Amino acid sequence: MIVVVKKNQNEKQVQNLMNWIRDLGLDVHVSRGENSTIIGLVGDTSKVDIDLVRSLDIVESVTRVQEPYKNANRKFHPEDTIVDVAGHKFGGKHFQIIAGPCSVESEKQIIEVAEAVKKAGATLLRGGAFKPRTSPYSFQGLGLDGLKLLKKAKAETGMPIVTELMSERMLDEYEDVDVIQIGARNMQNFDLLKAVGRVDKPILLKRGISATIEEWLMSAEYVMSEGNQNVILCERGIRTFEPYTRNTLDLSAIPILKERTHLPVIVDPSHASGVARLVRPLSLASVGAGADGLIIEVHNDPPHALCDGAQSLRPEQFDEVVQSVRPLLPVVHKEMDV
Amino acid sequence: MIVVVKKNQNEKQVQNLMNWIRDLGLDVHVSRGENSTIIGLVGDTSKVDIDLVRSLDIVESVTRVQEPYKNANRKFHPEDTIVDVAGHKFGGKHFQIIAGPCSVESEKQIIEVAEAVKKAGATLLRGGAFKPRTSPYSFQGLGLDGLKLLKKAKAETGMPIVTELMSERMLDEYEDVDVIQIGARNMQNFDLLKAVGRVDKPILLKRGISATIEEWLMSAEYVMSEGNQNVILCERGIRTFEPYTRNTLDLSAIPILKERTHLPVIVDPSHASGVARLVRPLSLASVGAGADGLIIEVHNDPPHALCDGAQSLRPEQFDEVVQSVRPLLPVVHKEMDV
Amino acid sequence: MIVVVKKNQNEKQVQNLMNWIRDLGLDVHVSRGENSTIIGLVGDTSKVDIDLVRSLDIVESVTRVQEPYKNANRKFHPEDTIVDVAGHKFGGKHFQIIAGPCSVESEKQIIEVAEAVKKAGATLLRGGAFKPRTSPYSFQGLGLDGLKLLKKAKAETGMPIVTELMSERMLDEYEDVDVIQIGARNMQNFDLLKAVGRVDKPILLKRGISATIEEWLMSAEYVMSEGNQNVILCERGIRTFEPYTRNTLDLSAIPILKERTHLPVIVDPSHASGVARLVRPLSLASVGAGADGLIIEVHNDPPHALCDGAQSLRPEQFDEVVQSVRPLLPVVHKEMDV
Amino acid sequence: MIVVVKKNQNEKQVQNLMNWIRDLGLDVHVSRGENSTIIGLVGDTSKVDIDLVRSLDIVESVTRVQEPYKNANRKFHPEDTIVDVAGHKFGGKHFQIIAGPCSVESEKQIIEVAEAVKKAGATLLRGGAFKPRTSPYSFQGLGLDGLKLLKKAKAETGMPIVTELMSERMLDEYEDVDVIQIGARNMQNFDLLKAVGRVDKPILLKRGISATIEEWLMSAEYVMSEGNQNVILCERGIRTFEPYTRNTLDLSAIPILKERTHLPVIVDPSHASGVARLVRPLSLASVGAGADGLIIEVHNDPPHALCDGAQSLRPEQFDEVVQSVRPLLPVVHKEMDV
Repeated sequence: MIVVVKKNQNEKQVQNLMNWIRDLGLDVHVSRGENSTIIGLVGDTSKVDIDLVRSLDIVESVTRVQEPYKNANRKFHPEDTIVDVAGHKFGGKHFQIIAGPCSVESEKQIIEVAEAVKKAGATLLRGGAFKPRTSPYSFQGLGLDGLKLLKKAKAETGMPIVTELMSERMLDEYEDVDVIQIGARNMQNFDLLKAVGRVDKPILLKRGISATIEEWLMSAEYVMSEGNQNVILCERGIRTFEPYTRNTLDLSAIPILKERTHLPVIVDPSHASGVARLVRPLSLASVGAGADGLIIEVHNDPPHALCDGAQSLRPEQFDEVVQSVRPLLPVVHKEMDV
Repeated sequence: MIVVVKKNQNEKQVQNLMNWIRDLGLDVHVSRGENSTIIGLVGDTSKVDIDLVRSLDIVESVTRVQEPYKNANRKFHPEDTIVDVAGHKFGGKHFQIIAGPCSVESEKQIIEVAEAVKKAGATLLRGGAFKPRTSPYSFQGLGLDGLKLLKKAKAETGMPIVTELMSERMLDEYEDVDVIQIGARNMQNFDLLKAVGRVDKPILLKRGISATIEEWLMSAEYVMSEGNQNVILCERGIRTFEPYTRNTLDLSAIPILKERTHLPVIVDPSHASGVARLVRPLSLASVGAGADGLIIEVHNDPPHALCDGAQSLRPEQFDEVVQSVRPLLPVVHKEMDV
Repeated sequence: MIVVVKKNQNEKQVQNLMNWIRDLGLDVHVSRGENSTIIGLVGDTSKVDIDLVRSLDIVESVTRVQEPYKNANRKFHPEDTIVDVAGHKFGGKHFQIIAGPCSVESEKQIIEVAEAVKKAGATLLRGGAFKPRTSPYSFQGLGLDGLKLLKKAKAETGMPIVTELMSERMLDEYEDVDVIQIGARNMQNFDLLKAVGRVDKPILLKRGISATIEEWLMSAEYVMSEGNQNVILCERGIRTFEPYTRNTLDLSAIPILKERTHLPVIVDPSHASGVARLVRPLSLASVGAGADGLIIEVHNDPPHALCDGAQSLRPEQFDEVVQSVRPLLPVVHKEMDV
Repeated sequence: MIVVVKKNQNEKQVQNLMNWIRDLGLDVHVSRGENSTIIGLVGDTSKVDIDLVRSLDIVESVTRVQEPYKNANRKFHPEDTIVDVAGHKFGGKHFQIIAGPCSVESEKQIIEVAEAVKKAGATLLRGGAFKPRTSPYSFQGLGLDGLKLLKKAKAETGMPIVTELMSERMLDEYEDVDVIQIGARNMQNFDLLKAVGRVDKPILLKRGISATIEEWLMSAEYVMSEGNQNVILCERGIRTFEPYTRNTLDLSAIPILKERTHLPVIVDPSHASGVARLVRPLSLASVGAGADGLIIEVHNDPPHALCDGAQSLRPEQFDEVVQSVRPLLPVVHKEMDV
């Protein structure tokens, strides 16, 4: 970390700052110029509160040289982490497609969708039991009944299941869940992150809609610092000024993450755009950008037959997306299990 | 809610949509034009999932005429809600200043700061015991010990206390806390919102850094729909592209909220800017914009004496801010308790 | 256009509004409900100032049903526009790669780069003669001398040239330029747009860094409404809160534009990210998303040999990008000229 | 400027970088640490292209210590610049209100509005003759006829006039204009900025809707570097994700600008919000934040009588705003001319 001190500052305050840095166990290198004094902090600076230092009156600017994340940092773990979910691998040369309905609605629905997406090439089944909704008056999911239906679908099809956890209180109920999803709205629910960090299951960590890549990696770090190293990152769009899409899918994040971290990164094109018609082109784009997989919403539920255009695809549309993705994989040196 | 159906759509799908709307208990008014069909939904549309309707293939656009919030809506509660905290009132003609340190650090610190801010005109004491931090390696607050120190400061000075709750699990420990703060990162932690909705205490609900005003009101609605009507909103800056400030304080939000909701609205100029020098001008601007109060960080802790310029003010600087705010209050028809 | 009038409004004002609408030559359909009155505007609403109507006191909301652009609108021109540049076609099944240095610096530089990118598969040569720079103290390009060098490179290699026009005053000098580029900063320089709308040359219109897709299409409309229908749109990233990339490439914009307009759309992965390492993955992602081409910065200038990592690729890196793009094209039903 | 070089870099490239820096006339201070090498650039770094350096492969990060603007920099001009417009002063302890219609529409309109706003306390008259409109089909202003009417209003009332210039071509027609406004969309139309930099008239430079404060000051620098030091900055809202207001007024920008630059700063609350009801609270907030003045839209034109709620105030509403602003001015040590 490099701290630039303003010109003509009270020397006592500068000394106070340097003493405080040394008290944190760091070495201090000072270089005094005509217009400013530069202080280099050497050692493990991840414990230095950069905002606090930046806000000091005597400080002109602060630059972090070392990233604030360690467990998630590729510098310290150069090899790709491979997250194994019942034999299906995320990371490295592997490419996985997770698919399923937005919400679990009935036994018939979840099993029919599971069978359809499995046939098309999906290897994991997703489905919401507890649903985060902006309005308290919107459908909040089937809850524990939804979890039970997911487990039935797993028993029936052999597909591992991915579902969102919204509250630490419910963690005991997630024993048979294969991958615990932390949703975008809870990306900085630090108590929840710590709780799943103590669990022996892969965590699918969605990016918050206004989270920087660094904040997202810091949230992964919360999970990993508690012991659980099996984190899969999921880009799902960020909030911008553009109204045509619900969120703006940030595909540049994928190659950037691939440089910074060893964790696998997948993309959710359904939530990013909110429009089924965009799922196919955004899936192809995600593959081109280097993603390790996709998570796609698929429904077949008759009461929703009216919503042909929702962000969920029908099974036959999902099949088309998988078919169009397959020929791109060799170009990016990836392969699907099936 | 008004739904515009695209030209030349499959009539059966249009009928399906209208039947589905009627099944939700709403009336349907149809007006067929040359280029499009307009469907008006009449009744309580707060239960209609606007995203779902918007995403239908046959739908050109959807406009909500009625806001999706009810308890928080000024249309249904034209009078200002006055939230009473141990005799100190938020809303209407009242103006309150909440002050205190970012984190509770020691008995001496919290009591000294409490006495200083009380003397200057603050009526409530703030202080963090559980601190949400981007990094798992940053100081996370004193936790339960911090709560105890806050209660001592309350006993000593008579000031009601405001502190952040990060996890439902801790709720029992907050019995002597006067106002429970829900932080920006938890604004859409819906389980936590529901939990504090069942508590008989005022809730200080901070705006999420990328929350729209409507999403923020929907989070207030989560609290209120569980029974607790005592919600104080707190604007603390939104995330934009501008790097000079940590967040961009959105003061237009205040007059807009005053039109839309009856709830009191205060401003946190310390967190918005992240810079102590900006606290005074942004406090004055907040008063001008019509805020019902301020929440300001003040410290006096010697180990931090070096951080003169942090977002926290020293007691004498805080006193100056209060002194400069006082003469503005009559202009906006507000008054302080002391 | 649908206007929702608030409950209990002054009837005279509502009549004034309707008369004003009729004066614009539009038909008015009124539907009076219990809570609101809905006014439908039928006819060519592109001349209605939606902001003005939205801001009326009596108006609750306004929804545009018809897009405000006509010439650029796919509804009125369902077939893809094919823009032909000296036999190289943009749009439809065609895929073109434009390449060249950020700035023209010398005869040797521009000719060497031109030859190298031509060999690798680029069909048009780009190069900046007049450079828009944030600082008045930064290099502003070689100006007219730069244009001359570009023309030499064109004569030498037979490649058509693309270069930015910053001022209408310079238009006469662009006679031998094949495609006139309008940069992101000038996307709403309406006088410049009108000027190039009267020119008989293709226009490469870059998206402004904070322009919505609709505003961008309206800028294309400015050009087209003056007569020039040969507009190529170029996505080059939008401004967001994410600091790791200079801008966030909005690849969702491509399939959305493909629905809304018949104009060709290309992507500039060099400027979007500002980092050479990201050009390859973002190029592949652009192809996946359905782009009609790429515009990529390539340099070979010795004084810049130090900037291996700038947003510009070396010729051999550019060759690699083109080689990795080729196998993706059949998947998206596109083909290159060479 | 401080450049941090990555660990284990090719020494030859590091030497190339240092030689290149020295060729720019700067001194180089090198400090080699275990994990990185730090290069300090000493001298006038305003000519160093920070993006280019940042993008080098060998570079970890770059921090600018010295701001890239000189003429606009308060460090080099500690005293407030006072811009004098026919005796009305902007900056220092002065507070000016500019008012007038969005567009000049007729002689009667502009003179009536001018007389009304003058009576209420406005000292300068604004009015649009050339209007930048998103759509080519919207009213583009009366053009030269509008300029003539403005001059008539000036002759009639003695008020200096402020109006927008959209094209350098029109500059000769602005001889009798007192203040030339550069609109938000042209904030980075560098040819236009240079042109008005050679004019002997104050320039009102509006902030671009997605311009950072630094980019805005660099645009002021473009004007000033050509000789014209009389620049008045005007904050008018930035583009964010919040849909309730057209733009988000960034009032934190005012105290930040007051630290960084000596130029006067005014606020346009009419355009920022797009809603007349917000003009009063945002005007008071602007005064609280330390603005040197306001620019407010006022209309009285009968054909627009229907738009009571547009962003323009009626004269009596404008009078109310001025009356409510007056008592705040002494608190912030400002005074109006009349």
